[in-house]
Amino acid sequence: MKRLKDLAEIVGGNIIGDGDIMIVGVGSAKEGASYGTITFAETEEIHKEAEKTEAAAVIVPKTITKSSKTLVQVDNPRLAFARIAREFMPKPLVTGEIHPTSVIHPTAVIGEDVSIHPYAVIDEGVRIGPRTVIGPGVYVGKGVKIGADCEIHANVVIEYETRIGDRVIIHGGTVLGSDGYGFVTTKEGHYKIPQLGNVIIEDDVEIGANVTIDRGAIGSTIIGRGTKIDNLVHLAHNVETGPECLIVAQSGIAGSTKLGKRVTMAGQSGVFGHLKVGDYVTLAARGVITSNVESGSFLSGFPAIDHKQNYKIKAASRRVPELLKQIKTMEKRLAELEKKLEDK
Amino acid sequence: MKRLKDLAEIVGGNIIGDGDIMIVGVGSAKEGASYGTITFAETEEIHKEAEKTEAAAVIVPKTITKSSKTLVQVDNPRLAFARIAREFMPKPLVTGEIHPTSVIHPTAVIGEDVSIHPYAVIDEGVRIGPRTVIGPGVYVGKGVKIGADCEIHANVVIEYETRIGDRVIIHGGTVLGSDGYGFVTTKEGHYKIPQLGNVIIEDDVEIGANVTIDRGAIGSTIIGRGTKIDNLVHLAHNVETGPECLIVAQSGIAGSTKLGKRVTMAGQSGVFGHLKVGDYVTLAARGVITSNVESGSFLSGFPAIDHKQNYKIKAASRRVPELLKQIKTMEKRLAELEKKLEDK
Amino acid sequence: MKRLKDLAEIVGGNIIGDGDIMIVGVGSAKEGASYGTITFAETEEIHKEAEKTEAAAVIVPKTITKSSKTLVQVDNPRLAFARIAREFMPKPLVTGEIHPTSVIHPTAVIGEDVSIHPYAVIDEGVRIGPRTVIGPGVYVGKGVKIGADCEIHANVVIEYETRIGDRVIIHGGTVLGSDGYGFVTTKEGHYKIPQLGNVIIEDDVEIGANVTIDRGAIGSTIIGRGTKIDNLVHLAHNVETGPECLIVAQSGIAGSTKLGKRVTMAGQSGVFGHLKVGDYVTLAARGVITSNVESGSFLSGFPAIDHKQNYKIKAASRRVPELLKQIKTMEKRLAELEKKLEDK
Repeated sequence: MKRLKDLAEIVGGNIIGDGDIMIVGVGSAKEGASYGTITFAETEEIHKEAEKTEAAAVIVPKTITKSSKTLVQVDNPRLAFARIAREFMPKPLVTGEIHPTSVIHPTAVIGEDVSIHPYAVIDEGVRIGPRTVIGPGVYVGKGVKIGADCEIHANVVIEYETRIGDRVIIHGGTVLGSDGYGFVTTKEGHYKIPQLGNVIIEDDVEIGANVTIDRGAIGSTIIGRGTKIDNLVHLAHNVETGPECLIVAQSGIAGSTKLGKRVTMAGQSGVFGHLKVGDYVTLAARGVITSNVESGSFLSGFPAIDHKQNYKIKAASRRVPELLKQIKTMEKRLAELEKKLEDK
Repeated sequence: MKRLKDLAEIVGGNIIGDGDIMIVGVGSAKEGASYGTITFAETEEIHKEAEKTEAAAVIVPKTITKSSKTLVQVDNPRLAFARIAREFMPKPLVTGEIHPTSVIHPTAVIGEDVSIHPYAVIDEGVRIGPRTVIGPGVYVGKGVKIGADCEIHANVVIEYETRIGDRVIIHGGTVLGSDGYGFVTTKEGHYKIPQLGNVIIEDDVEIGANVTIDRGAIGSTIIGRGTKIDNLVHLAHNVETGPECLIVAQSGIAGSTKLGKRVTMAGQSGVFGHLKVGDYVTLAARGVITSNVESGSFLSGFPAIDHKQNYKIKAASRRVPELLKQIKTMEKRLAELEKKLEDK
Repeated sequence: MKRLKDLAEIVGGNIIGDGDIMIVGVGSAKEGASYGTITFAETEEIHKEAEKTEAAAVIVPKTITKSSKTLVQVDNPRLAFARIAREFMPKPLVTGEIHPTSVIHPTAVIGEDVSIHPYAVIDEGVRIGPRTVIGPGVYVGKGVKIGADCEIHANVVIEYETRIGDRVIIHGGTVLGSDGYGFVTTKEGHYKIPQLGNVIIEDDVEIGANVTIDRGAIGSTIIGRGTKIDNLVHLAHNVETGPECLIVAQSGIAGSTKLGKRVTMAGQSGVFGHLKVGDYVTLAARGVITSNVESGSFLSGFPAIDHKQNYKIKAASRRVPELLKQIKTMEKRLAELEKKLEDK
């Protein structure tokens, strides 16, 4: 439980009402926030929904001044809500202790206040920064360096020589540093090209569950600072993303492709290999980029083209069945006219 | 080995032939069922295939009365086969014991006859119901409640506060309760919205391998009773499915979408977020639902529309290359006619 | 570090220059190979790039005879590079020891020089061949047989009765032998059809990370010799691949489909169930095969058709918006002609 005035201070909010009330957690305006929670409303419409709930307080824009609830006025209600929600976030993996069942190589260097859970395996030459959490069953391979304040969930696999920055979150079952998919095909078979590079995860990256990020063939696969990757995404060897990219669930990027900054790939999308995608590019769900893309583009379809263009083409293609009938009729009319003119 | 008359009793079947023969296992009519097995045939055609095999007995509909094999007549041969096959199903993870290497928090409450395998980690406040099996390397997070007769395969990750009902099967590597993908974007970066909800898996659900089901942002992600989820499926935060849905491999559902009862999503399909899909809806493979769907619909394509309609459009679009040529010719004929009429 | 003449001997290469120089590793011609490395160049153009780097030697075709670098002439530079790279490949999981924390059933038979890592669990009746590596947290189920010289990465799950040949590599988090997705639907629910088959992985197969391969319903799911499977692929029950297939990331094959030899499925592609795909078939990225396919085909699209044909259709469909306008105009001209002819 936290006092409302303390929460408001975190976000620089202006309280209209009683700042001494106690808040028990966060709630959703649309789905019935429960007694004593705080919620947010970006519009008067949602504010009215919030007033119907049992919430104690609502975070609102400065344009909302009257309410049956206590208000906290801010510039960005959604952001303020996220920051306040953080105060109520449980940290179930923080223990501050190293569980005796974890196997830690004598040459590994573990920072202060690190939490290591049962059955984690920390291999030779590993460095782990202060306050980082290593979940149960995690494997940290030879020579891996992990920064400070990271959160590695259960059963994650971090293969040798991976580099992870600070404040990185990795969800369960993810594999970093598996071999890239590289073979030379001869008549005897597909000969494996050793993958001798590594994976670099920069600061403030978050990676979902059961993601796969392959090591580079030579050199590194690099996930840029502040990028957020969703579940079941695949990033092939030598892919590089700029900072603050958003890659939604089940998407994939083929080998050696480079994304600029703040590229957004919606769900189940894809990018061919050896391409350059500019900055601030958005790819719609299921889109597939098949050639280099300029900064600022908004694309959809396969091959991905300008979204408006693709929309026109999709809408038009739905009319092709009737078009075929129309052409058939026009053919007849044309034939009749040709006959009439001949007869004359 | 089991006596045929005992197997027939399980399914209320009528034996034509010797009920005392011993059955060693199950077999496939089309792929050469081996000596002493029992198989099934839904039609006379498949029955003839079954007669060519070395099977000892065949489960058939009541319309089949003559055979070189011993027959078991039932209403639903496929279902009866499945129930009889169950008698021969190995249960390799059932040990009835708690392996000494499992780490179990003192406050966890473990039911009767639970099997816990090596290196399973059971965290604080967990409850596990009777006869449930926890496989090797499984992580059961804080406060998780699991019902009776569940089967959790190796290396599954069950994050804190997840609720699992009775008779739930979860295959290897699956992650339940990873954080939903939620961020507020500002010019400083993407600020993480804490995901404070949980995951609820109702009774009789089966979940495949390497599946990811995110916890709700606020409130629960809910998998309805009797739903069967295939491998590598992704269900985002606050998704809810009705009972008895079928979600085939590599499909994905975006955040906050609700499915009705007995919705079928074929392989590699998808549903956009914040939608309502009715009951008994079928989505074909690779289809993508982009707007609310009425009960009883059968959809395909992207955006998913009525299947017959989509089929027409796809068939028509294959004719567009020849249509372009046809239009070109019609243009010429039209121009000639216009010229002729002018000359006159 | 290795002497160049020893490396050249491995690949039967002809040295032009000093064969006594020491090589420290491999590098990339295009991305600045570092001091003392060896790289390769298939063309004079790439050779020129290589000359600008700090590499000590370049593997080239026999047509390249002059260089500022030491040359190694071979028939297939890419293959020779892969073989030489192997000499510098770290083998971080090879220890030659069985870690005391691994749990090994007394009836398991472990070959010579096997490496078993912490927290691996080897169940009853397992056989593991010489020099095989079992990574941390791997679960090897009852009765599993694994051949010689295999490399099983961390947290892989190998369910009971799986058979794995020699020189098989399996990357982290993969699950072999999960139950196939099989149910009989009645009004009471979806009744589980026990999956009583297994999985067979033949020699020289490589499987990526977080892959799922289901056991057969009856009989085996079989991955053919020399096949290479990329990350996050799903292979359903009773799928069989011929030898030397290439299945790229995030693809899926539905139940009982058989692939011939050297079938290539590019990324995020799919094949419907119960089909036969011939030999040497190539399916482009995102393609979906929906009916039997003859050997030698090159297909794309959904449903997958001849690639050239599909390309034509896609190109034509982009012109449909303008076509609609064109038809509208032609309609008008046709109507005018009809009117003129009537008036006359």
